[in-house]
Amino acid sequence: MPSVTLVFVSGIRGFLGQAVARRARQQGFRVCGVDWSSTPSAIEHDVDDVSTTAVTTESVISLIETNGPPDIFVHAAGSGLVGASWLDPLKDFECNVSTTAASLHALRNHAPDAVFVLPSSAAVYGNATQGNIREDSPVAPISPYGSHKLMAEGLCRQATEMFGVKTAAIRFFSLYGPGLKKQLLWDIATRLVVRPETLTLSGDPNASRDFLFVGDAVDLIFAVARKYATESLLVNGGTGHGTTIRDIARILIERISPGTELTFDGVVRPGDPLHLVADIGRARNLGFDPATSLEDGVDAYIDWFIGLQDNKMIGAQP
Amino acid sequence: MPSVTLVFVSGIRGFLGQAVARRARQQGFRVCGVDWSSTPSAIEHDVDDVSTTAVTTESVISLIETNGPPDIFVHAAGSGLVGASWLDPLKDFECNVSTTAASLHALRNHAPDAVFVLPSSAAVYGNATQGNIREDSPVAPISPYGSHKLMAEGLCRQATEMFGVKTAAIRFFSLYGPGLKKQLLWDIATRLVVRPETLTLSGDPNASRDFLFVGDAVDLIFAVARKYATESLLVNGGTGHGTTIRDIARILIERISPGTELTFDGVVRPGDPLHLVADIGRARNLGFDPATSLEDGVDAYIDWFIGLQDNKMIGAQP
Repeated sequence: MPSVTLVFVSGIRGFLGQAVARRARQQGFRVCGVDWSSTPSAIEHDVDDVSTTAVTTESVISLIETNGPPDIFVHAAGSGLVGASWLDPLKDFECNVSTTAASLHALRNHAPDAVFVLPSSAAVYGNATQGNIREDSPVAPISPYGSHKLMAEGLCRQATEMFGVKTAAIRFFSLYGPGLKKQLLWDIATRLVVRPETLTLSGDPNASRDFLFVGDAVDLIFAVARKYATESLLVNGGTGHGTTIRDIARILIERISPGTELTFDGVVRPGDPLHLVADIGRARNLGFDPATSLEDGVDAYIDWFIGLQDNKMIGAQP
Repeated sequence: MPSVTLVFVSGIRGFLGQAVARRARQQGFRVCGVDWSSTPSAIEHDVDDVSTTAVTTESVISLIETNGPPDIFVHAAGSGLVGASWLDPLKDFECNVSTTAASLHALRNHAPDAVFVLPSSAAVYGNATQGNIREDSPVAPISPYGSHKLMAEGLCRQATEMFGVKTAAIRFFSLYGPGLKKQLLWDIATRLVVRPETLTLSGDPNASRDFLFVGDAVDLIFAVARKYATESLLVNGGTGHGTTIRDIARILIERISPGTELTFDGVVRPGDPLHLVADIGRARNLGFDPATSLEDGVDAYIDWFIGLQDNKMIGAQP
């Protein structure tokens, strides 16, 4: 890719979408996006064009007609919630699979030089054994979300192999950082504020996750997009280090409400694997280096979280 | 499955859908269906309820509300055309993948005892080596159509493993029979009528296919639905015998216009594998026995074809 001037972000008002848009802006690119949610976000003032609409072939084409064909299209739309995919698997299919098909169709015909980056998920691996998971490990998703991300990856591969569309999929492990109002860290933090005496978590305390700071995730997205050559890329996005749920909970307790008693009920939610830690050899070969330590990342998250509290902005994510 | 009283067929006005509906009716079942196409077909008078509508969660639920939950749902909707999937991959995705997601969603919530049968395709295998292909052979589709059928199979597996929906996928090889107004046999037959002097076919004359008569395919669909136990079923639908494109062309020439000179231009269409012949051990274990010989099947096809000619009903499939 010779030079980047225009970046499209779907799901631009979401956690990852905002972070991608902000970075693209900082690097001097023009930034446009779509998001079905009309909830205002701080990103509006930083970018060139945001359409409040579902991600469809028509909405992507319309964005291209108004702003020109993008050099990079980051498909950050989609729920990212394993639990929600059990409650409404069809909606999860539509958010994660249908929107990918629609976006690729629009790019194939109207922006053939764009690099399409799919934030996929380690959920495609399912119940991995202990150890660091490589991209060529067997895939066996154990949630509708994981199975849909695998289909979205299949659409990327198809678009590249059969139609020459430039695609890359990044299997993100546990993304976190300022702005994330869902998933484990958010759940723990909000519960510590509401009821600081005790914290009872579900699942296995020794289950481990590879927590990747959102800023590093954005680094990887741009590294992958810039290094795109001729084949469909598939890259793990993690740090290569596992942290147990017990340890991450203790770090949060220490920062938010030292003295909270931590217990586990042992109930494992369907779709929650025991260990998910990445082998990041491929990402490192693209020049990726996850620079943010877990301590620094959690500090940044808690600073943001406390800022919300002070502004009385804590509430359930719509 | 204790007893069957109600069968739903999507794509009920199509080639396979009509054959399934007719057989179900002959067996004394009530039969209902949906089809997006409003082109009238002979099936209308034989069945209880046909809605002219796309296959969506809403249209399937509406059919259930009117007629009750089905015992068997045969998802015969979808184009079945490899070539068309190259021209409009998004439409092929919507016809083959989105409709499967929508139907399974409706059954999961409104007809939890139904057995869902997906007519999948040998196209999921891609370029198989010579020899009979087993269901556990590697899948590597080489057309959007094949890749979408693989995703539809994934949705079936997900629905069974994660939600207990009863699903079965049958990877049909080369289906043919009266009523088929597309694909190889139709192409050859219509060209022999229009220009009987010479017939030039594309592709490799020694490429082989496993031609399965539609009546036998319907046998297999009902065998699979009745034998459904607890696991998602995946079964090849073929005869186990390969016939070269040269040989099938010669059989048709002999019956329609003896003396036609047969040549091949050697141009292989993308997505057309060299050999596709099934191992049908699994289907035989379900009691399946493809009873129609190629000679008898082609005779039946040509009788139907000549009947069309006599009625001046030959024309391009809409």
